[in-house]
Amino acid sequence: MQPREIEQYLHDKIPLSAAMKIRVVEWTNDYLILEAPLAPNRNHLGTAFGGSLNAIATLTGYGAVWLALDVRDAHVVIRDSTIAFRRPVRGDIRAVCPLPDQAALEAFRSDFNRRGKARLSLQVFIDHEGERAVEFSGTFVAVK
Amino acid sequence: MQPREIEQYLHDKIPLSAAMKIRVVEWTNDYLILEAPLAPNRNHLGTAFGGSLNAIATLTGYGAVWLALDVRDAHVVIRDSTIAFRRPVRGDIRAVCPLPDQAALEAFRSDFNRRGKARLSLQVFIDHEGERAVEFSGTFVAVK
Repeated sequence: MQPREIEQYLHDKIPLSAAMKIRVVEWTNDYLILEAPLAPNRNHLGTAFGGSLNAIATLTGYGAVWLALDVRDAHVVIRDSTIAFRRPVRGDIRAVCPLPDQAALEAFRSDFNRRGKARLSLQVFIDHEGERAVEFSGTFVAVK
Repeated sequence: MQPREIEQYLHDKIPLSAAMKIRVVEWTNDYLILEAPLAPNRNHLGTAFGGSLNAIATLTGYGAVWLALDVRDAHVVIRDSTIAFRRPVRGDIRAVCPLPDQAALEAFRSDFNRRGKARLSLQVFIDHEGERAVEFSGTFVAVK
């Protein structure tokens, strides 16, 4: 799947991603970046809502797993996650998921092909004005 | 604040809670319950999206802190949270936040009044068909 397809897929299949106005903005061999504007994701303090920050981090992780697997018949679910809010996000939200190194990706693809099931731990970061605002880590499971 | 006020406040101040069609359904001295229908919160598998489950748990925690403090001049933020997805939620989402015991609540209110700042750890559960589907724990901070 390509980034545009991921974006369309997210909006079609996960209505909250459309309500959040999530966009897939960049995809390289090293990372995936999703963005969302502040307005639909603001909280009672006018900063980004913690639930939105968690949701965009989760979606960035999903996207990374889909792109890493490059298969359309995988069911991907999230098993668990932890998030720390270091400082408020006072503007557009930009979530970066660094892809695991090549060895970890190969092991993940190999497990998936051999056992029909594989697990991948991913971290997602959200920076604001040059400083780390949010740290998220999640365990994703792909099932054939 | 009363439950209806909390619901209106959430929808006014946090647009995502309106997109999720969150309702405050029950509030006693022991717990707070929020619900949301599956449709706006579904994922690519037709079950509840992990980001929605996290967001409703976060909002239930916010609500519990607001109700526990019973003040309108507190800024409440979430510091960190952990969530485990035990099984899929295939219908309406019902998030239950058991209030801490009276001693913990008194300590929280006393810290808030004395220092202008207090921290409260809360757990939120989402059951589905009689089984535990989601376990969430979060640390909330109230600042005067």
